[in-house]
Amino acid sequence: MADYRVPREDIQFLLQDVFHVDQDWARFSQLAEVDMEMALAIVDEAAKLAENQIAPNARAADEEGVKFANGQVTTPQNYKENFKQLAEGGWVGVTANPEYGGMGLPKVVSAQYEEILCAADISFSLYPGLTAGAIITIDQYASDELKDLYLPRMTSGQWTGTMCLTEPHAGTDLGIIRSKAEPQADGSYAISGTKIFITGGEHDLTENIVHLVLAKLPDAPAGSKGISLFLVPKFLPDADGNVGERNQVHCGSIEHKMGIHASATCVMNFDGAKGWLVGEPHQGLPAMFTMMNYERLGVGIQGLGAAARSYVNALEYAQDRIQGRGAKATRQPEKEADPLIVHGDIRRMLLTMKAFVEGGRAFSTYVGQQLDIAKYSDHQQERERADALVALLTPIAKAFITDTGLEATILGQQIFGGHGYVREWGQEQLVRDCRIAQIYEGTNGIQALDLLGRKVAGSRGQLLQPLLEDIQALLAEPQAELAKEYEQLGEAVKLVASVTEQVLTKVAADENIVNSVAVEYLHLIGYVTYGYLWLRMAKTAQPLTAERPYLASKVKTAKFYMARLLPRIQGLAAAINDGSQSLYLHELGDF
Amino acid sequence: MADYRVPREDIQFLLQDVFHVDQDWARFSQLAEVDMEMALAIVDEAAKLAENQIAPNARAADEEGVKFANGQVTTPQNYKENFKQLAEGGWVGVTANPEYGGMGLPKVVSAQYEEILCAADISFSLYPGLTAGAIITIDQYASDELKDLYLPRMTSGQWTGTMCLTEPHAGTDLGIIRSKAEPQADGSYAISGTKIFITGGEHDLTENIVHLVLAKLPDAPAGSKGISLFLVPKFLPDADGNVGERNQVHCGSIEHKMGIHASATCVMNFDGAKGWLVGEPHQGLPAMFTMMNYERLGVGIQGLGAAARSYVNALEYAQDRIQGRGAKATRQPEKEADPLIVHGDIRRMLLTMKAFVEGGRAFSTYVGQQLDIAKYSDHQQERERADALVALLTPIAKAFITDTGLEATILGQQIFGGHGYVREWGQEQLVRDCRIAQIYEGTNGIQALDLLGRKVAGSRGQLLQPLLEDIQALLAEPQAELAKEYEQLGEAVKLVASVTEQVLTKVAADENIVNSVAVEYLHLIGYVTYGYLWLRMAKTAQPLTAERPYLASKVKTAKFYMARLLPRIQGLAAAINDGSQSLYLHELGDF
Repeated sequence: MADYRVPREDIQFLLQDVFHVDQDWARFSQLAEVDMEMALAIVDEAAKLAENQIAPNARAADEEGVKFANGQVTTPQNYKENFKQLAEGGWVGVTANPEYGGMGLPKVVSAQYEEILCAADISFSLYPGLTAGAIITIDQYASDELKDLYLPRMTSGQWTGTMCLTEPHAGTDLGIIRSKAEPQADGSYAISGTKIFITGGEHDLTENIVHLVLAKLPDAPAGSKGISLFLVPKFLPDADGNVGERNQVHCGSIEHKMGIHASATCVMNFDGAKGWLVGEPHQGLPAMFTMMNYERLGVGIQGLGAAARSYVNALEYAQDRIQGRGAKATRQPEKEADPLIVHGDIRRMLLTMKAFVEGGRAFSTYVGQQLDIAKYSDHQQERERADALVALLTPIAKAFITDTGLEATILGQQIFGGHGYVREWGQEQLVRDCRIAQIYEGTNGIQALDLLGRKVAGSRGQLLQPLLEDIQALLAEPQAELAKEYEQLGEAVKLVASVTEQVLTKVAADENIVNSVAVEYLHLIGYVTYGYLWLRMAKTAQPLTAERPYLASKVKTAKFYMARLLPRIQGLAAAINDGSQSLYLHELGDF
Repeated sequence: MADYRVPREDIQFLLQDVFHVDQDWARFSQLAEVDMEMALAIVDEAAKLAENQIAPNARAADEEGVKFANGQVTTPQNYKENFKQLAEGGWVGVTANPEYGGMGLPKVVSAQYEEILCAADISFSLYPGLTAGAIITIDQYASDELKDLYLPRMTSGQWTGTMCLTEPHAGTDLGIIRSKAEPQADGSYAISGTKIFITGGEHDLTENIVHLVLAKLPDAPAGSKGISLFLVPKFLPDADGNVGERNQVHCGSIEHKMGIHASATCVMNFDGAKGWLVGEPHQGLPAMFTMMNYERLGVGIQGLGAAARSYVNALEYAQDRIQGRGAKATRQPEKEADPLIVHGDIRRMLLTMKAFVEGGRAFSTYVGQQLDIAKYSDHQQERERADALVALLTPIAKAFITDTGLEATILGQQIFGGHGYVREWGQEQLVRDCRIAQIYEGTNGIQALDLLGRKVAGSRGQLLQPLLEDIQALLAEPQAELAKEYEQLGEAVKLVASVTEQVLTKVAADENIVNSVAVEYLHLIGYVTYGYLWLRMAKTAQPLTAERPYLASKVKTAKFYMARLLPRIQGLAAAINDGSQSLYLHELGDF
């Protein structure tokens, strides 16, 4: 496996030149202390930790995996050192509230750190990643008492966090969960039930684990409106945060999975475990969605990280491995054969990877910037617009970055031929690790329903407007060198408008329409948004190329993207326009 | 994991109603003894073996894997019994020459057996599968002496076979192999070199293993025109076929892979091993391509088998698992939730799988029929036409069935949500096992080069004609119920013609064009061919539905395929028409 190298120049280009995030920071009072130099220095610190400590051990960690015996989980041998260095660097609390020791960095910077960590080792990234999500939820919904006790220790990485939602019979459909919470005389609750697929539910990295658990109070209304959220620690801390009595929550087993072998996926049994209500009774689902929405961009970034790592490996291999002869102009007759990279099909695969990776990085940065505006702007209107964009873009970030991430990792494996199928090169691990990101935190099908059903149809298309405005703003200033590509994007936007209108017209009369075309619709919007970001990058790069040769490829990759990948929207639009009909011809016995 | 059930009705429908293969058999003197009843009885025998013996053990075999120690490979515990029953049933020699004990069955029947075996357990299927390919090559090219000694024992399953092509530095590019063959005084050759990725290179299933090895004679011309083929047994048999002295070919190690864990992928070291020339000196590559071409349809069928198995599992899960509420008309209010299968997106995934699986089965049957005509017809013109179709369809069969097979297995995993990522349900194993089929026996990129470069461009488009004639023959007899779909197929064929013409126009002036658009081109032809087969199936099924309710779904699935999957050709055509330009903007330093 090639050494992992963080794309520092690309990150700088995005933050500084494409998105000008320092101009935001200068305006936002809470971010007044952040500047570009500091942000890039922070990215560089994360990069060194990832390149030198975490990435080199990821392959061995996959082989070693997590072990389970007598209720205890043992993580791979290098993980304790990984986690120690990560916690010492303050990375667990990178976006957390400074009141509790967090760095309080903008999301647009932490999004880069997250990609770097995921590229280095997705399995490892989940331990701090889930903790960061739990921190945000507790900060937003828990009582001051719980916050004072838990947040400093989670933010420092002394304790980790989990989210406990899924039960054996209830995954996507949380309305039918059975876990129960009985009120106790001391104001706490006794939590009972079985939760499955709990990432980091048990491990040996920290002295305590803090579970955020969905359960039903005795007087809960039926369905998803009767779910409450509870904080349940593995060990009950005293008022000073010293770890005390063992709580009645135990890991019953761990899952054996396709990938993320070094991440502990636990069955957690709650047997009257002591817990505390977080937020209002029966309001657990909205609170949990705070965490879910935070995680969803994070899961998208997992797909990006896997794809980015795979690209670094595949590029090096394609440059080094000689096999066959290229076209006359590219031949290296002094060698036994030419390097793979001269071959058109290898270039197709590499450029598809590059377009998805750098497009995905631009997308996560775009969403990160909007999250920061929504959180930090002093202008309500600006915050509301950013909130709307985040609502629209979050399901796309989760699903489209992971779907294109899987395609990229599969291509990165294919470039290696048979060596890509063998474990030692690491390319197949990236496929296996990436695959889960399409499934958890709400499957990509569920993301698509959220996008088309709740967001687009739910707003009668209004929620699409901020994105379309951003695209139109770019299209309003065409660039001669990219005239053809501007035209392609203009056509694509028209297609989005007509397809959206068709779907909206059908919604009233066809109950099945949203669920029948949602995935293709999400892909349609995803491809067009990547097209927008590629043209925005190309336009920005064009005048800077002379002094920064790295940027020479931006215009070229944009042209590739528009010529070879954007046309996929034609087939997607045709499928969407067909509606639900062809999915409901089959009776149950016809399958 | 659901029990594997062989789709007997679908196989019967294809053989009897769609392709009328019994009418071929009646005409071909060598197949005069085969009839439909016998063929279906044979399929049923294979089905029972697969359902009762092989499939139930596949999950455990994946967990156990193959073990390597002291030069020996140990296969999973149930494999010896699997192989014994398979050999006793005569399945290893299912298509082999009756002169040496083979069943001599038509390929159109053995294609069904192969799918059944692959669906049951791809890892296991490779041991007899490679042997069958070796048998054909020996039968066609080896001396009578070698044939008499080796073929009866390989055909009976007493010995297995391998193909030894790849070396550490030479995979796709066999012209640069370094293995050597030194002529010996007794007419044999001393073979030296290292071969990698040798499937079944060593194992404990049989008393002997027969390697077919590519190596260079001392006077060999450089490149691919200097390669010869040798037969190198693990143990040197005496004239009566009794296994004697150990030959100097040993397994140095086995690969640790993403999947097919129970298939031994070996590094084979030849240290002056005794071998015999097969065919003419320096003519090894054409001989090996006999085997490769046989294997390529077989590898396509691996993708089909994995997808077919995944579909059986996913359908059962989607019917049993309740989660969420469907549209009003589909609700089952007495239950806590509705079964997954009521949801549009689940139906989209299931029907995509179904369309690829049944389309792939029709495709492998179509190719199988042409292979039989090419081999058995008494009319030269008919043989030549079938040969041309086989040449065109073989790379599509290998690449398109495995590419759509991977998509199907990924969807089959997605339908299970988190449970699809967990090993115990078996869906993730099918993804991992299917993935290799896109890589070995010539990567799918190489198949695409073969199709567009050698076959289509190499014949100035002439080789496409028999396929287009078959499609036009169908289009000439439209059916009212399928009027829209006939029109769609007609448009798709026009698109093929215009895209092909565009590419052919560019070939002379652009050395990179073929390698730059080949994969999209193969997919274009693949989707259109599946469209043709779906309409052919629908047209055939329509009048039979009343008496065979199973066929009710054929027309419906055809409509789904044309509406939701065929439109992908639009994006493919746009990408192909862009040519090579956007792939060659990047200098090496731009990646």
